[in-house]
Amino acid sequence: MTGPAIQIDAAEVERLVLELGAIGAWGGTGVWRPVYTPAWVAAADRFAAWCGEAGLAVHRDAVGNVWGRLDGREGGDAIVSGSHLDTQCPGGRYDGALGAIAALLAVRALKERFGLPKRPLDVLALCEEEGSRFPTAGFWGSSAIVGRVGPAEADTMVGSGGETMAEAMRAIGLDPARIAEARRTDIAAFVELHIEQGPILEQAGLPVAIVDAITGMRHTEIVLTGVANHAGAFPMDLRQDPMAGFAEIAAGVVATAHRMGRPAVTTVGRVAVDPNAPAIIPRAVTFTIDARHPDPAARDRLYALHDGLIREVAARRGLGVESRVLFDHPPCPSEPDLVALLERGAAAQGVPTLRMASGAAHDTQQMAAVARRVAMVFVRSRDGRSHTPEEFSSVADMVAGIRVLAAGLYALAYEP
Amino acid sequence: MTGPAIQIDAAEVERLVLELGAIGAWGGTGVWRPVYTPAWVAAADRFAAWCGEAGLAVHRDAVGNVWGRLDGREGGDAIVSGSHLDTQCPGGRYDGALGAIAALLAVRALKERFGLPKRPLDVLALCEEEGSRFPTAGFWGSSAIVGRVGPAEADTMVGSGGETMAEAMRAIGLDPARIAEARRTDIAAFVELHIEQGPILEQAGLPVAIVDAITGMRHTEIVLTGVANHAGAFPMDLRQDPMAGFAEIAAGVVATAHRMGRPAVTTVGRVAVDPNAPAIIPRAVTFTIDARHPDPAARDRLYALHDGLIREVAARRGLGVESRVLFDHPPCPSEPDLVALLERGAAAQGVPTLRMASGAAHDTQQMAAVARRVAMVFVRSRDGRSHTPEEFSSVADMVAGIRVLAAGLYALAYEP
Repeated sequence: MTGPAIQIDAAEVERLVLELGAIGAWGGTGVWRPVYTPAWVAAADRFAAWCGEAGLAVHRDAVGNVWGRLDGREGGDAIVSGSHLDTQCPGGRYDGALGAIAALLAVRALKERFGLPKRPLDVLALCEEEGSRFPTAGFWGSSAIVGRVGPAEADTMVGSGGETMAEAMRAIGLDPARIAEARRTDIAAFVELHIEQGPILEQAGLPVAIVDAITGMRHTEIVLTGVANHAGAFPMDLRQDPMAGFAEIAAGVVATAHRMGRPAVTTVGRVAVDPNAPAIIPRAVTFTIDARHPDPAARDRLYALHDGLIREVAARRGLGVESRVLFDHPPCPSEPDLVALLERGAAAQGVPTLRMASGAAHDTQQMAAVARRVAMVFVRSRDGRSHTPEEFSSVADMVAGIRVLAAGLYALAYEP
Repeated sequence: MTGPAIQIDAAEVERLVLELGAIGAWGGTGVWRPVYTPAWVAAADRFAAWCGEAGLAVHRDAVGNVWGRLDGREGGDAIVSGSHLDTQCPGGRYDGALGAIAALLAVRALKERFGLPKRPLDVLALCEEEGSRFPTAGFWGSSAIVGRVGPAEADTMVGSGGETMAEAMRAIGLDPARIAEARRTDIAAFVELHIEQGPILEQAGLPVAIVDAITGMRHTEIVLTGVANHAGAFPMDLRQDPMAGFAEIAAGVVATAHRMGRPAVTTVGRVAVDPNAPAIIPRAVTFTIDARHPDPAARDRLYALHDGLIREVAARRGLGVESRVLFDHPPCPSEPDLVALLERGAAAQGVPTLRMASGAAHDTQQMAAVARRVAMVFVRSRDGRSHTPEEFSSVADMVAGIRVLAAGLYALAYEP
């Protein structure tokens, strides 16, 4: 039940992280590796080579995801682990990359020590999780695996340079007409290791967390419309000032999430003012609200409080309000037995963990559409940073995370 | 003491407003007439021609202000009235233009009915009050008259197309080396008629106001700096979110001015967010605060409340704060006897008025550096609009305002 101790070579972890991070290196510690660019192709090639060297059967699917298979003696649906190779522009060495490397090193260690598993074990390197080249294509690789990419999408999706997804695919020898072939239905479990991207593990003084849910998340764009007027000649009591309304709403939604307590979060990140001049009461303020909660009932409460505040402020101030939901992802709970299994595995490896929700979105929530069981393993991030060249996780923490992952994969693939 | 009734021809007011508004016309009712452009030159020429037709001695000074003089039998310092011919881009037909037309029609009416005054009467059309071509040159024409333009300013001041003020002057035959010659020191009184640009007269149901002060006004640019982080993975209680700080400050300063009551006004008009993305807690928010009050003590209180709030919010939220005063104009009180004189004149003309502060800045506050007595007459603005093609004042209201102005000029120039 507790499982055998599994050793992971720290020097090897560091070597692979640095070698992969050198492909698309940006400045000192940054990485600039958007999907289907030469840097991304080189990273996928390197990863495929590593899988081959580890004795895995390498397969590239129709969108360029790299699969490395260790066959199972009894066949059946696969146990899969991995993450994405694409980065933010610029991102760091750990976000995504570490999860692919971790899967490879975990499966390699299991194979070397225990030989073939009962059930097939797949290492997976996904593509365009970040949407850093194709902003509307987040989770592109995992969406293709679960069959969620529509037939015309590659022709209509436009990248940061104006190119379509189909053009970008063809440029590196992928055929967009074959995207549907990337679909997989034979996945029993998917476990993704990822950096935490927040400060919770650091605050708790722990190296690893088991993720019990990925948060639900809604992006809303609000347009508040008032009446533009002279900043000096128009008395306060007669204004219809969308900036004043925006300020009240932004302060209010942030305070609401803060009051609700962890893991509720609400962020106002983007603002546009029209006109945007010191001495003019603006006509309109457009802004986004990013609100997240992993618990369905609490999430509904959070969203309702935000919506109610927007309506109340707009009505009281005589402002027009248009509200558009840009997207709304439901929470993705991990499978409770798999969470417990990973916790037992961590205990067997002597790695202290906590249980937490992921406030960020991940490929795992796509994979959950096919995989019967999903969960994630988080590794401590220094200062909680991510999506920046400054992101960093220590080798010791990465080793601890990979040992927990390996223990989980052992239980899933090798045990009865 | 009550003065003679003075008639102003309503059709003539409308004719001059429409003819001047046709020069640089923009869309249906807009005007686009920045200083020293062909439209502005044509408007100044037309105005000079009107002055000549009215029997005034026309003079263009070194920066292009148009003066039309009616000599005084006893000489001495001049009684001056006028406003500016340049507009916002686009502005309307009334802001500025009406004050120049009003001065011309008032002096013309006085000359026709009463002949030469005791003291000289000057009609004045000023230039670049708005700063709509040279953003840092607000009050250019009146600044030159009071000797406030430095010797190198025309060479360093840059217009919206990259040209210097000196180049723009030379292009229409003005010599920037002679700017100092525009200076006048022989001005006894300056009275400017202008549209209100706010809704106070409309609310009160009155056509005309006598302005007892031009507000004091400070523009401050604030930079709040926090730590950029992932909008999902970073808990509310650990954030240093400059957007949350900005929202609290913006809502607070607006509420402070509202609570203080008229004529206090505070506006947050310009905001820049870095980065400006829905799912990132920003690193920095830069914004302006425009705060105004015509009473020196109340103004100091208003500014101190704003500054205190900014410090308190930044400290509590762990944000860096940089604050830069872009400019700080003291209030400009009208001369109380001149305000009373204009009110008596209005009463004699049967024009009901109220007394109010100007929340907008005007050439009058520059002219006050030379003129011993200054005051303004406001004409009702429909919906309080200005700096837009939609600004509008009725012919009846304009006539009422010009009669009040004429009564004032009569008392200043004709009476003992």
